[in-house]
Amino acid sequence: MTEPLRIGVAGLGTVGASLVRLLAENAAAYGRRFGRPVKVTAVSARDKAKDRGLDLAGILWFDDPVALAKSPDVDCVVELMGGADGKAKETVEAALAAGKSVVTANKALLAKHGNALAALAEANKVQLNFEAAVAGGIPAIKAMRESLAGNRVERVAGILNGTCNYILSRMELEGLPFEAVLADAQRLGYAEADPTFDVGGFDTAHKLAILASLAFGTAIDADAIYIEGIASIAPLDLRMADELGYRIKLLGVAERTATGIEQRVHPTMVPKTSAIAQVMGVTNAVSILAEPVGELTLVGPGAGGNATASSVLSDLGDIARGTRLPAYGVAARDLEAAEQPPMQRHEGGYYVRLSVLDRPGAAASIATRMAERQISLESIVQRKSAQTKDTTPRASEAPAVPVVLITYATTEAAIRAALKAVMADGHIAEPPQLIRIER
Amino acid sequence: MTEPLRIGVAGLGTVGASLVRLLAENAAAYGRRFGRPVKVTAVSARDKAKDRGLDLAGILWFDDPVALAKSPDVDCVVELMGGADGKAKETVEAALAAGKSVVTANKALLAKHGNALAALAEANKVQLNFEAAVAGGIPAIKAMRESLAGNRVERVAGILNGTCNYILSRMELEGLPFEAVLADAQRLGYAEADPTFDVGGFDTAHKLAILASLAFGTAIDADAIYIEGIASIAPLDLRMADELGYRIKLLGVAERTATGIEQRVHPTMVPKTSAIAQVMGVTNAVSILAEPVGELTLVGPGAGGNATASSVLSDLGDIARGTRLPAYGVAARDLEAAEQPPMQRHEGGYYVRLSVLDRPGAAASIATRMAERQISLESIVQRKSAQTKDTTPRASEAPAVPVVLITYATTEAAIRAALKAVMADGHIAEPPQLIRIER
Repeated sequence: MTEPLRIGVAGLGTVGASLVRLLAENAAAYGRRFGRPVKVTAVSARDKAKDRGLDLAGILWFDDPVALAKSPDVDCVVELMGGADGKAKETVEAALAAGKSVVTANKALLAKHGNALAALAEANKVQLNFEAAVAGGIPAIKAMRESLAGNRVERVAGILNGTCNYILSRMELEGLPFEAVLADAQRLGYAEADPTFDVGGFDTAHKLAILASLAFGTAIDADAIYIEGIASIAPLDLRMADELGYRIKLLGVAERTATGIEQRVHPTMVPKTSAIAQVMGVTNAVSILAEPVGELTLVGPGAGGNATASSVLSDLGDIARGTRLPAYGVAARDLEAAEQPPMQRHEGGYYVRLSVLDRPGAAASIATRMAERQISLESIVQRKSAQTKDTTPRASEAPAVPVVLITYATTEAAIRAALKAVMADGHIAEPPQLIRIER
Repeated sequence: MTEPLRIGVAGLGTVGASLVRLLAENAAAYGRRFGRPVKVTAVSARDKAKDRGLDLAGILWFDDPVALAKSPDVDCVVELMGGADGKAKETVEAALAAGKSVVTANKALLAKHGNALAALAEANKVQLNFEAAVAGGIPAIKAMRESLAGNRVERVAGILNGTCNYILSRMELEGLPFEAVLADAQRLGYAEADPTFDVGGFDTAHKLAILASLAFGTAIDADAIYIEGIASIAPLDLRMADELGYRIKLLGVAERTATGIEQRVHPTMVPKTSAIAQVMGVTNAVSILAEPVGELTLVGPGAGGNATASSVLSDLGDIARGTRLPAYGVAARDLEAAEQPPMQRHEGGYYVRLSVLDRPGAAASIATRMAERQISLESIVQRKSAQTKDTTPRASEAPAVPVVLITYATTEAAIRAALKAVMADGHIAEPPQLIRIER
């Protein structure tokens, strides 16, 4: 194995440029650690003229990444273009079909076509590696696929989107509303002009779909994931969370339950003392509960050209050394269909914030409606609202005061039905806020 | 590769018994994930008659583990006996020499003979895997050896001994002295009858030696590690740390500095907001700072039969799949001699607690002696001591009051010289407490 591994890089954005630079600068060190020389022999990107600060002398240029994938001068293709379909998919398929291992950071592609691509890689006896597709520089894929191969995973939960964690961290620390922090994050380059994909939870869902497949040996099924984003979180929720001993994080959670494997993305109250609650800013984290190991938590940079390039290099090292593993830990034909219970069957504790009209009967309504569904309350916090602080409420114009409830474990169906009944009783000024609690 | 991997387990203590049980119970799942069947064909332990709750029917018994290592019915040897020399070493050597891959959890063996054993494994083209030797169930070895293969490590620091972290955590949370918590830990089975190996920092040093080799591509040199244990930590130090925004942890730190690669084990003040400060009780953590990835922190169970068995299974999976890697990431012949600067050249901040005789001149002595060595102080905290709270000090019997200093970065040589001079000035009642700070 002293023949060099010849790498074709499709996509020269931040990660691609970092990768080409690192491979050039550290050729000798990588050669020692990967067991054979590795070198970039071909690249492809949209604009050949663009100055990326890279020395591409001696490297073949392809306008078409599919042609790069088929080139006889390339042994292994690194796909860094992005996009669930189109050229990215064609390039990966062409490489695998040509018997070339592929490294990709493309979570959208894997979330949509991951099962078929894994089968294609196996049929051609090559590797499909994607450490960079989930949690940036954190070696979460290798941990799940190799380190925990002797375990039965019960639960995997992660802070998988740095933009959301950055926004929630600043909202908490500075008491600012979502819109203000989002605008600032966009200005600073931490959020896209159209932030929906991040703040809506869709990016987290793509990554969760991949983790869930590795965790449970199930076929990827991203469409079945329950998704809520962070736009509804108010500074008041973050203050109340703090007071009650929690932090709010956008988590992707995949969990083995009595009714199947839950996969869900939503803002989550996590105990302040938990490892995952300490993760602030753009940092990511993945926490895995498994038998026999117990709980492992991996924390690190979730994005950025260099951190992501580190994961691509890890994958390239494995390919250079000849390490062979099925994409999702077990052969594609052995992946089971994920039995995903409906969200209504989810069981857990809930944080409920109600905007209660300050008049007789409201408290009785809430207590009765919860009791009717056997929902027990762990805490109730009622505050005089800011507006009513120095005024005497008049019966004709009852002001709304926030009331926060923390429930013991109940079902999503029960809490939703109870809240619907509370709303119908007419004491509530606006739709309730509901945040799930993870212990 | 559908031939089963036949495993010989030498040592049936907690980890060995867990491993044999897990391999029997999960044969089908491991077969799928490891790419071929794995089964225990031979075991060895001291006492054949002992009831371990294991079904050993159909498994060969060896009184002599070296004979097990040489058995034609064994492809791969798992060494779980422990001990830096003697039968453990003989067994591992015999297996490697016979062309069999070895999995070991034996950090003492690796810390002492790791270089020679790695060379022996390479000469025989077999694997020497030891995920379980460092930080129990945390996949720290795989992370360093494979995931970070494209990185240049700057620093690795870890909470690597659960006994010490348990003792420090309880001292902090309950305000108890070291001796009281140690006694309780011994009663609960968290500390050995002779606790020196753990609380003296030696166990941490063995693990650090292995991590440092992986981090820096250097030959293992455990004898050169600077070691301080936790017996000198007082409840007052933990209270002062808390007040100043720190926690005290026993860390193993290996770090690239201008003068070489520092390797040291000592109680350390870490900022309360750091990931490693959150790690309480018997949990372990490894934090790695590397280029290009940035900082990764891995947290999980550091000991226990099941957690450790998980790491052994990870190693076995790699061997079953045919994954090939040098023990320390690069070929044994490429490991460089570690250039270890003397501790006197260490640079960093220091926490100093002085027991100052409460009389004129003491403050001036401290300030002058620090200034003479260009040591700048970040904080000074002086408290009236508990004994003097309600009494008027008499000149003839000056009581001692604790004075705590936090210095900016200085050298070990400078702070030690300054403290020696302060002592010589005669205002100090007892030897100073000195704890290094890591940011």
